[in-house]
Amino acid sequence: MAQAVQASIGDSEFDRDTSVTARAPGVYDAELSAGWTIIRAVNGGYLLAMLGRALQDTLPHPDPFTVSAHYLSASQPGPALIRTETVRTGRTLSTGQASLIQHEADGTEVERIRVLATYGDLDQLTDEVRTAATPPDIPPYENCLGTADGPQPPVAGSSAIMDRLSMRLDPATIGWAIGAPSGKGEMRGWFALADGRDADPLSLLLTVDALPPTSFELGLRGWTPTIELTTHVRCRPAPGPLRVAITTRNLAGGFLEEDVEVWDSRDRLVAQARQLARAPRT
Amino acid sequence: MAQAVQASIGDSEFDRDTSVTARAPGVYDAELSAGWTIIRAVNGGYLLAMLGRALQDTLPHPDPFTVSAHYLSASQPGPALIRTETVRTGRTLSTGQASLIQHEADGTEVERIRVLATYGDLDQLTDEVRTAATPPDIPPYENCLGTADGPQPPVAGSSAIMDRLSMRLDPATIGWAIGAPSGKGEMRGWFALADGRDADPLSLLLTVDALPPTSFELGLRGWTPTIELTTHVRCRPAPGPLRVAITTRNLAGGFLEEDVEVWDSRDRLVAQARQLARAPRT
Repeated sequence: MAQAVQASIGDSEFDRDTSVTARAPGVYDAELSAGWTIIRAVNGGYLLAMLGRALQDTLPHPDPFTVSAHYLSASQPGPALIRTETVRTGRTLSTGQASLIQHEADGTEVERIRVLATYGDLDQLTDEVRTAATPPDIPPYENCLGTADGPQPPVAGSSAIMDRLSMRLDPATIGWAIGAPSGKGEMRGWFALADGRDADPLSLLLTVDALPPTSFELGLRGWTPTIELTTHVRCRPAPGPLRVAITTRNLAGGFLEEDVEVWDSRDRLVAQARQLARAPRT
Repeated sequence: MAQAVQASIGDSEFDRDTSVTARAPGVYDAELSAGWTIIRAVNGGYLLAMLGRALQDTLPHPDPFTVSAHYLSASQPGPALIRTETVRTGRTLSTGQASLIQHEADGTEVERIRVLATYGDLDQLTDEVRTAATPPDIPPYENCLGTADGPQPPVAGSSAIMDRLSMRLDPATIGWAIGAPSGKGEMRGWFALADGRDADPLSLLLTVDALPPTSFELGLRGWTPTIELTTHVRCRPAPGPLRVAITTRNLAGGFLEEDVEVWDSRDRLVAQARQLARAPRT
């Protein structure tokens, strides 16, 4: 999408579509946008960012340090309710809980996601870093492949979310798109929001669940639903596109883990995440 | 401790000390044993196993598949209350929540740990495994070092839990005990319960938080309190001692992650866990 003016943190499609409106203390109205769907399902990372925003409003600390989400049922575009609870507040950290709820036609509440999260203030951390982690070996942005470059993904249907992401996958992890999966549990690529909004801790919650599942490269086709996803935000990302590397080592008994690293333009490990997902039933 | 008869799953010190008594639906009385303390703090993995047992009683599925725990305040030996809630029940998975609570002298409730967990039935999973993970390279049990073999750990005081564990650390990761830490964020060893009780999914919740922190090998001394710990149990462990390998790659801003793998005697990856911890303040 052509953008006349680059969007900014606080004034972007992502910010508007993840906004929540306090109805009462700890109760928020939200609208799940159809713009962040994959086929008919609303992306789990987008929903997590929305829950993260409600918790940011509830808790005294601004930044998600660790967010554990258990996915209960598939969300639908449309109205939703978020309930939050302050579990504990401390000097440097506070912990909260949030639930995303939608209503059936008869008014019955259905819980979609439940989250436990501990927040802090990334700007209060020291700059000290001792790391053995190195950025993933991803080809330059221009040598990676965008959604316009290749054939359709193996799941049929349109994915509105792709219009909102500027994502380019490492050619080494995109064999699945041409029927030649590598057999390795790896997925890597560049990630940015299409309107140019820079990354922040809330958008990282989207980033960790935005790439195609590693199961595609393992030769499996179909839904790989997240059971649980825990994300650690380790520092505030610098402006510029992010690099995302996902690894699956163990597909066993119909379940797999996805280990996610997100690196910023200053070569800092800004987020680590791991999810347990159900393998496609083939 | 000499044992006349080998303990078994269901009839062991671990089972007795993690037992909970239902007082009402979703309300359990528990006693935090002083036998599982490190200095004065009750071990977080022991507490997690106790919460896991309460959830096992609450939910229709028997085995923890993924357990996310946020640690709120330090538990003390003595009476405790566990409250559980069934969040969702499905055909193959169910999700619950649990809180561990203790009371101040004036009766005020203080929450120690809050947990979200999704349970299933490990015996219903297929045997299919496709894994790129390999067991850690740990010397044979007899070449690893037990607590009786070396000097005291860098945290002064007695640790009752060491009497209950049969743990032997890889000499390559025990430099901290003689003032010569490797500088690498690695900790590895053999793990079993001292009374010979075999591992099960509940005891794995203890195992993932039982080794000394990797921060010791990074040359840091002192408490490394867990902020959040998420554990995936991937299959039911076979009898015999377990191998545990912990890696820290990123110590940044005063926080570090610990990535834990647990392998059984049949060379299967039985659990994966990751925690976010606060680095010792040096």
